[in-house]
Amino acid sequence: MTSADPVALAEALIRCPSVTPDEAGALAFCEKVLAEAGFATERVTFSTPGTPDVENLYARCGTGAPYLLFAGHTDVVPPGDAGRWRHDPFSGTIEDGVLYGRGACDMKGGVAAMLAAAIRFVMANPGFGGSIGFLLTGDEEGPAVNGTVKLLEWAKARGERFDHCILGEPTNPKHLGDMIKIGRRGSLTGHLTVHGRQGHVAYPHLADNPVHGMVRLISALLAEPLDAGTAHFAPSNLEMTTFDVGNPASNVIPAEARATFNIRFNDTWLPATLAAEIERRLAAAAGNAVRYEVAFAPTNATAFVTEPGDFVTLVQDAVEAHTGRRPALSTTGGTSDARFIKDHCPVIEYGLVGETMHQVDECARVSDIEALTAIYETVLSRYFMPS
Amino acid sequence: MTSADPVALAEALIRCPSVTPDEAGALAFCEKVLAEAGFATERVTFSTPGTPDVENLYARCGTGAPYLLFAGHTDVVPPGDAGRWRHDPFSGTIEDGVLYGRGACDMKGGVAAMLAAAIRFVMANPGFGGSIGFLLTGDEEGPAVNGTVKLLEWAKARGERFDHCILGEPTNPKHLGDMIKIGRRGSLTGHLTVHGRQGHVAYPHLADNPVHGMVRLISALLAEPLDAGTAHFAPSNLEMTTFDVGNPASNVIPAEARATFNIRFNDTWLPATLAAEIERRLAAAAGNAVRYEVAFAPTNATAFVTEPGDFVTLVQDAVEAHTGRRPALSTTGGTSDARFIKDHCPVIEYGLVGETMHQVDECARVSDIEALTAIYETVLSRYFMPS
Repeated sequence: MTSADPVALAEALIRCPSVTPDEAGALAFCEKVLAEAGFATERVTFSTPGTPDVENLYARCGTGAPYLLFAGHTDVVPPGDAGRWRHDPFSGTIEDGVLYGRGACDMKGGVAAMLAAAIRFVMANPGFGGSIGFLLTGDEEGPAVNGTVKLLEWAKARGERFDHCILGEPTNPKHLGDMIKIGRRGSLTGHLTVHGRQGHVAYPHLADNPVHGMVRLISALLAEPLDAGTAHFAPSNLEMTTFDVGNPASNVIPAEARATFNIRFNDTWLPATLAAEIERRLAAAAGNAVRYEVAFAPTNATAFVTEPGDFVTLVQDAVEAHTGRRPALSTTGGTSDARFIKDHCPVIEYGLVGETMHQVDECARVSDIEALTAIYETVLSRYFMPS
Repeated sequence: MTSADPVALAEALIRCPSVTPDEAGALAFCEKVLAEAGFATERVTFSTPGTPDVENLYARCGTGAPYLLFAGHTDVVPPGDAGRWRHDPFSGTIEDGVLYGRGACDMKGGVAAMLAAAIRFVMANPGFGGSIGFLLTGDEEGPAVNGTVKLLEWAKARGERFDHCILGEPTNPKHLGDMIKIGRRGSLTGHLTVHGRQGHVAYPHLADNPVHGMVRLISALLAEPLDAGTAHFAPSNLEMTTFDVGNPASNVIPAEARATFNIRFNDTWLPATLAAEIERRLAAAAGNAVRYEVAFAPTNATAFVTEPGDFVTLVQDAVEAHTGRRPALSTTGGTSDARFIKDHCPVIEYGLVGETMHQVDECARVSDIEALTAIYETVLSRYFMPS
């Protein structure tokens, strides 16, 4: 294995069983290959009461500007029943040109491609003039409190200033040229309680049915779209995730009903303005007839977008150069650590094909890992040595 | 105690702790006082697998027509925490003119008034020419499968034919002259299931939210009244009694939602026609968008009414003669054994004030028990010896 072979790096990373929050040698391995290539490296462990301690890795090569940061994670979700996998989920086995294993696409394959591309680039261009950094965490699939968000604050406190960041999450639905993510929607969860008055179904005038009140509130929340979408985002969307009463007696009107909703929202809203809009809709629907409470869960997932421009175009061009496909610019999907990075510098996400992420037989095509490495190399070349 | 003293009879009955299905001497006591007054009596026990055996009492005085039947029950609901009562719930204690005890108004006080009125009448009018009967069960507050419904079938099989029946349930909300019940609403319970497709809230287009589908179905059920009421009935009414999903994950769209409703319905409907109307509304609301099932619980509670006429007027007049108040003719409240009796003869319900039924410190005014006895006596006189 050479440290510039992304497939060998990916195999080695998969063989570290680094299920969150266990580092399992994965960050140590990354540190070793980066140090050998001349990167200054630092391991940082963060602690929060009530959550596990988590190890993180920061590395930098060069001292000048501009500073391009690669971000990622080496932790993985649990494999589930290993017996259901065609290969041991931590064996990193290649079969018919496909690399199998937990983390193959999310995102040890992406980390391996970043490492190989950066090492190749700094080996070939020792005087490139800018800086290349790595911000790797072991807490992306877990609570995400002792990972990227704290490592960024730690770096900022040391005076580190990033110009752009590429997060190597698997962004492509089917093919390597499909999609770059230039932002993410925000997420807001609310818990609704409707207070009624218990009574016998034969005497509804003596009771107040909270199920009817809750249905009225939910109908109001679902009646009108929250927005029509924005330049880079689909319309915001509200989903009811549960509705619970738990009354076993069919002759009794219950006393209380509870429900929960989650909203994936675009850059029309901040969490606070969206919560205010929900409260307005609830109050209008409730009038004096429904006694209710709504409580919003704390959220750090605000919507953000990195506006298309030179950097986004540079990455798009690099993807097209190697895949023959012009990747779409998207803000779809769940949340990612990009929501933390966007407070420090413009960030885009681009990595492997995510079709098998979190599933049994997670895998990545070997040719995709190699092509992704080449794409990252092209990005580095054009970023630091514009023609 | 004489067998024609209704208060002494009520005290004696309350002292039998006849919580369903325990007879506890209550029916034996009724049988004894009726036999002493010349009634032919018969004890009948019914069994059904899965429910307790229940004792019942049938008694008849006279062989001619017309045949007026008194119906009632000697079983009571449990007293709950006896320590919360001002007197032992089975002591039958009189304080300040009020008789306390479980069953005081529901309906040992009413049974005592029936017994005393009938005994007084047959003692005073040995050749009255018609027949007076008692149909007393120990299974009204329980499953109601081994009580009135079977005793009626048993009597019918023996050739017994009733002309009219008075069921002595506590029908008055506040005062003895308030209300006669001339019918009851029916009851229909339905269980709804909506099948969705589980998924991540960030990808709603890949899922199908059953909570949204259920809210749509319930909104349709509640949108329009089932009817406008009929001559003797309030509008039919639907209450949702529960709505359950049980999904703890606020980032997951659940796979299924369940809800239950109960309808108290008037004589616009039979259970089958009402179920068909509900099915029609659900199908219209669901269209091709909501996959659902509805299952109706078996019911023997159909709506019925005893049309006002000579018999109802006779009872109304008797109540007014003793209370100075003309009782309203009502079909409100829950179900009662009248739903079984109506298949055998016209039935009305009239008894004590029900304000404290099923509660701690259940009680009846002594003066009400005496007045109810006088009302029943007047009914008997006018029924058998019209002026």
